[in-house]
Amino acid sequence: MATERSFLDRPQGTREEIMNATYYALCEHGYADLTIQRIGEHFGKSKSLLYHHYDGKDDLLLDFLGFMLDEVEQSIPKTISEDAHIHLITIIDRIFLNVGQDQGQEFEKAMVELRAQAAHDSRYQEYFTEHDRFFKHRLIDLIEMGIENGTFREVDPDRVVSFLMAICDGTRTCRTTSNATAIRAIRDELETYIDTRLLVDSRED
Amino acid sequence: MATERSFLDRPQGTREEIMNATYYALCEHGYADLTIQRIGEHFGKSKSLLYHHYDGKDDLLLDFLGFMLDEVEQSIPKTISEDAHIHLITIIDRIFLNVGQDQGQEFEKAMVELRAQAAHDSRYQEYFTEHDRFFKHRLIDLIEMGIENGTFREVDPDRVVSFLMAICDGTRTCRTTSNATAIRAIRDELETYIDTRLLVDSRED
Repeated sequence: MATERSFLDRPQGTREEIMNATYYALCEHGYADLTIQRIGEHFGKSKSLLYHHYDGKDDLLLDFLGFMLDEVEQSIPKTISEDAHIHLITIIDRIFLNVGQDQGQEFEKAMVELRAQAAHDSRYQEYFTEHDRFFKHRLIDLIEMGIENGTFREVDPDRVVSFLMAICDGTRTCRTTSNATAIRAIRDELETYIDTRLLVDSRED
Repeated sequence: MATERSFLDRPQGTREEIMNATYYALCEHGYADLTIQRIGEHFGKSKSLLYHHYDGKDDLLLDFLGFMLDEVEQSIPKTISEDAHIHLITIIDRIFLNVGQDQGQEFEKAMVELRAQAAHDSRYQEYFTEHDRFFKHRLIDLIEMGIENGTFREVDPDRVVSFLMAICDGTRTCRTTSNATAIRAIRDELETYIDTRLLVDSRED
């Protein structure tokens, strides 16, 4: 999720300004310490607007997550490259491995915390199910495209994509909650997996 | 973490009784809604003992996590099987994929929540770094054993183990926070990965 997003630089209208404030407050405080009051500190207009629109921080955060998913859906082009392999690596690097700046890392930490809310809050679980469904479909389309044009082997796209998504989720968990030194090793092994499992013409290692 | 643990069935002494109460309270309430008071409801002795021993719920939970890691370290035999492949599959099934009962699922949800605390609490991050280090070393030993006795190919154990651990973490995240239908697909693809990447004598699919 390291794409350029206009609502971060130039929010248009009240809703984008609220989303902007929520993003920066999440990066600064994380989920547990976030309050509507603290979101208000990043918001240029009256805080009473926030209390008027939302029934508490989770209500606001769920709206924010929906907004972010819409943003991502629009910002990821269906076709980045004619080459399905390059396309796949680009998506993995941009979306899942989040090789970003400090701000991106703070946002990723907050996302791991928000995702954990889904363990006991069905509204968050609905959101992340929808989130995963979107990425799964996009990736399955891509694997199918690669199979059709002879770049990828005749794998079961659902299996391979579920596996890729688990690796990316696990990478995110590792980077945000444990020692991040494993990330390079995971990334290298992921390339080997893609080369040996997917590519018809595997490169020499 | 679906091994039999005596402190769950027959806690011995006050500390094990506290750990027992913490386990069941975590399964019942999850992290966010957990309080010392609620742990006390699962504890046979005076609740004041809990307040005496611990400075709040995080202090108690960190002690609990340390206790659980000691339990796991003792309960996982270094050698389950002479066959490194069977050993690996057994560990993955027992420890990471947690094909357990409802109680196991509730505990796994709580663990995902506790892990997310590490995003902003260095005490949890220290614990999960230690937790990951333990499993990583155990798995690297196993991969090296398999390479030495000719079961596994000459892979880089650190890379393969980091990758396997990311898959298992991602599987846990998926199962607890999103639609769990992907789990079977991830497990099937994991077997294919192990067969094609690790095994010298790959089975026919």
